[in-house]
Amino acid sequence: VRSRADVRPNLQDLLRAKTPTDFVRDVKPIIERVLEGLLGQLPAFPYAKQIPIIAKYAVFAGGGGKRVRPALALLTARCLNTPLGEVVDAAAALELVHSYTLIIDDIQDGDETRRNEPTAHVKFGTELSLLAAGVLLLEGTTRLQELLKVSPATIREVLYKLHAGQEADIESSTWEASERTDEAINFMFAGKTGALFELACLSGIGTTRVDERTIGNLLTLGREMGVLFQAVDDYLEQAGNDIQTGKPVGKSRAGKVTFMSLFQDKCAAKIEIARRREALEAKIDETLVGEGAEFFKEFLGALVDRTR
Amino acid sequence: VRSRADVRPNLQDLLRAKTPTDFVRDVKPIIERVLEGLLGQLPAFPYAKQIPIIAKYAVFAGGGGKRVRPALALLTARCLNTPLGEVVDAAAALELVHSYTLIIDDIQDGDETRRNEPTAHVKFGTELSLLAAGVLLLEGTTRLQELLKVSPATIREVLYKLHAGQEADIESSTWEASERTDEAINFMFAGKTGALFELACLSGIGTTRVDERTIGNLLTLGREMGVLFQAVDDYLEQAGNDIQTGKPVGKSRAGKVTFMSLFQDKCAAKIEIARRREALEAKIDETLVGEGAEFFKEFLGALVDRTR
Repeated sequence: VRSRADVRPNLQDLLRAKTPTDFVRDVKPIIERVLEGLLGQLPAFPYAKQIPIIAKYAVFAGGGGKRVRPALALLTARCLNTPLGEVVDAAAALELVHSYTLIIDDIQDGDETRRNEPTAHVKFGTELSLLAAGVLLLEGTTRLQELLKVSPATIREVLYKLHAGQEADIESSTWEASERTDEAINFMFAGKTGALFELACLSGIGTTRVDERTIGNLLTLGREMGVLFQAVDDYLEQAGNDIQTGKPVGKSRAGKVTFMSLFQDKCAAKIEIARRREALEAKIDETLVGEGAEFFKEFLGALVDRTR
Repeated sequence: VRSRADVRPNLQDLLRAKTPTDFVRDVKPIIERVLEGLLGQLPAFPYAKQIPIIAKYAVFAGGGGKRVRPALALLTARCLNTPLGEVVDAAAALELVHSYTLIIDDIQDGDETRRNEPTAHVKFGTELSLLAAGVLLLEGTTRLQELLKVSPATIREVLYKLHAGQEADIESSTWEASERTDEAINFMFAGKTGALFELACLSGIGTTRVDERTIGNLLTLGREMGVLFQAVDDYLEQAGNDIQTGKPVGKSRAGKVTFMSLFQDKCAAKIEIARRREALEAKIDETLVGEGAEFFKEFLGALVDRTR
């Protein structure tokens, strides 16, 4: 409650942002203030001081990233005319769960840097980083369950898909060529990236009245946007520039299936990304109307056209 | 809902169990049927089949243990005249969270066996075991949050203490002699073991009306019972019998502080355990009345006098 009050004045500015780029830029400091509030509430006991420090590190290291998931939550709210104050805490909770996945991913992949800084387990050790990861999952999921106006089972199912997508990602290194299908990759992306994008769109509803069909459409938008976001991520990593992405090209993904595994060359991949973007734009027009739809499509465009 | 209906007939038998030993013995198959139901609901996707298999393995390997936490939840319900059907799902959820901690503990300690069988990460690999652990935490905590009649913040705080206790446990290997105090060990035990015992007692309330003072007392009973349970665990591990405890003596705890670190010899430890038991019995008499109090004290006695 305190954290909401603190950020409420700034939330009005978000309604003034003219472009999705401005919007994402304006969301970042707001959501980071809420995250600081949430993480600041974790007690640092005399005999256990490291967990909150590691959790904060995982959330903020290397500048903390773009905060795409919270931005999508608040963007959805803007498009649905949901008061942003109803959404900002859930938006931050998404980032806690996302940070949990980053710690675990880096341990699984043995990655030593992320956003040009040491990963949590390199800096603090695997043992304590696992505890901080558990706390981030715990804090994030219980807050989402508390704040979102959907059944606990729905949240559980979506977050289960997040883990299932990560399993597919890990196992993809053992997939035969014949198993590296569109369907398999879509499943993997819809889980590992799409799940939190789905919850982001769901968060944007707040307590606004929307019909079941719109809820279903928003989930689809979130999932497909996550899939496309991941495809572009893979494309950029392959196009690969150490300095721009902040991690060694291809290291963490050695042997695993990526979006690029589906194509002979970068050009074919780029055409497929454009095709998916168009399909998603049509879906947006089905779901949202007027200025909201335009803004959402521009946001999608910014995600697809990004260079890092 | 289905799982509850399935086990309801057997729940009556629990009310007939004459001794706590009978009670714990009778709880085990009931809770395991509920756990099978919960875990059976985890979808095995074509591209991600391992997570539910590993989760089940972690919950059931080596006979699945005594199910002390669910037993304590149902025992508390019995003592408060709470219908057991209101408590059985939360009791099972506690075991899911407990199983999460076992996977993580074994990864942290590099333990290769538990209950005489390979640990999850040895059998299935660390990468996938981490995902199964995450799913167990997710399933357990969201169900507890859904089922327990306390605020989400309370559950979050108690489960945070669980992690804080585990941090203290890990860091205790670096504690100076002067830091190995009663207070430090109590903090560690109250977290790593007491937290789930607290939630067990809280689960036992169900929708029964109890005053705030009784809730506070139940939390204290749970926590202190957990501390004592852990003290006896450490005592037994030191007394050490590979065959009885199912893991190599002392390996996993090398260098860490245990209950035994507080004492010169086993005899002094045994006296302290007896002293704590007496103090806890007095607390039980303050909290519960009549047959309930006697049964609870007998349960405590069974935990303390166990040989494995």
